[in-house]
Amino acid sequence: MNIDVVFTAQTCSKERVKGKNAVVIDVLRFTSVVAAAMANGAKGIVPFLSVEGAEQYRKDSTEEILLGGERACNKIPGFDFGNSPLEYTPEAVEGKLIGITTTNGTVAIGNAAEATALYALSLLNLQAVVDRLLDGGEDVVIVCSGTLARFALEDGLCAGAAIARLMADTTCELSDSAYLLSTFYEQNKGTLKAVLSRSVHARRLLRLGYTEDLDYCCTVDKFDVVPVLNKGMLMRL
Amino acid sequence: MNIDVVFTAQTCSKERVKGKNAVVIDVLRFTSVVAAAMANGAKGIVPFLSVEGAEQYRKDSTEEILLGGERACNKIPGFDFGNSPLEYTPEAVEGKLIGITTTNGTVAIGNAAEATALYALSLLNLQAVVDRLLDGGEDVVIVCSGTLARFALEDGLCAGAAIARLMADTTCELSDSAYLLSTFYEQNKGTLKAVLSRSVHARRLLRLGYTEDLDYCCTVDKFDVVPVLNKGMLMRL
Repeated sequence: MNIDVVFTAQTCSKERVKGKNAVVIDVLRFTSVVAAAMANGAKGIVPFLSVEGAEQYRKDSTEEILLGGERACNKIPGFDFGNSPLEYTPEAVEGKLIGITTTNGTVAIGNAAEATALYALSLLNLQAVVDRLLDGGEDVVIVCSGTLARFALEDGLCAGAAIARLMADTTCELSDSAYLLSTFYEQNKGTLKAVLSRSVHARRLLRLGYTEDLDYCCTVDKFDVVPVLNKGMLMRL
Repeated sequence: MNIDVVFTAQTCSKERVKGKNAVVIDVLRFTSVVAAAMANGAKGIVPFLSVEGAEQYRKDSTEEILLGGERACNKIPGFDFGNSPLEYTPEAVEGKLIGITTTNGTVAIGNAAEATALYALSLLNLQAVVDRLLDGGEDVVIVCSGTLARFALEDGLCAGAAIARLMADTTCELSDSAYLLSTFYEQNKGTLKAVLSRSVHARRLLRLGYTEDLDYCCTVDKFDVVPVLNKGMLMRL
């Protein structure tokens, strides 16, 4: 299995993912939200690049639509949820369709959509997605969303964790970026939360008071869900 | 001192380098060529994006111009040198002006040219450039050239080495990418050549027979030269 890693959403080209399985990571916090919402029974999550796109989706739908996401880390006026996975409780999301727009994660989904299959990965559903990739056996491109077009350490750490688990089960040929992140994970796997908390984005969330979110997003293998993109909607596999 | 790292030439935006000191790295082999040619007495090196640009420079000049560089790792027909630092001997380059075009390194120089000052760094002239950055004291952006728009491990290792030396002498605030590469270097500094040789680009050069080039480019602090960009020409500071 060939494994490649793209460092930011913006540098994920169609050519890079074509014919491969893509995995999108935005640990803080979009793909953690996706894992939590799916595990708590959401019927589907539709990612949007703009607030207007999400609002239009709600307007055009005959079914009840909830909206979530963030701008500058905070909830968007008129939306039902922010970008905290703690908000997406079973009571709030079970059986519901949710439109979400975020600054980084939904951009990565859009840019990687040409892949053979696209899965949303966070630490919360690490093993579930890894098992799916091992079942498929195709080459894998891991797309780290990053923050405002810059590499985000927390996404790199999650990518490294996925690579380590893939390597434990199959023979892998790593690109330079994949090798870099696999060694970074091996070096830091004993202190995941400490390393993750030093990232620029984690420190910003902590300053804004999202301490519980950070703890939650550092939890490994909390959920056994594989969110897969199907005609523009993330659904439980 | 704030330190940031850009992973590939293509992702180096004007905004990212503006008001900062930029350091361009292309260990295999453009910035190693620059360090060797400068140390061996070349008067100046002008980077070009295209073969035609370099040829036009020679045509338009009243002075003798030598041309160097590569396409697909090999020498360009009609040029005086390929992209091997071993070719740029004192006998060949002393007092000469050289136009060079390569696939990755000259792209990085072009994209980082808006920086306050731009230096060319390789392992060959590591401490010389680090000393210059410490003298300046301004924020630093390290631009890894990469290979065909992908991250190259050898450039990341050299970036990490520079960061480690800067951190030894001054207080540094690292971006997530800078932190990742500084820890990667710390982990691998005892086996630099072995790690560098596993990069995708190093393996390609080895397959093509450039074994001596690889040995040469892995030499740390061979030269005490600081190549700086001045009106489009790299010159010895």
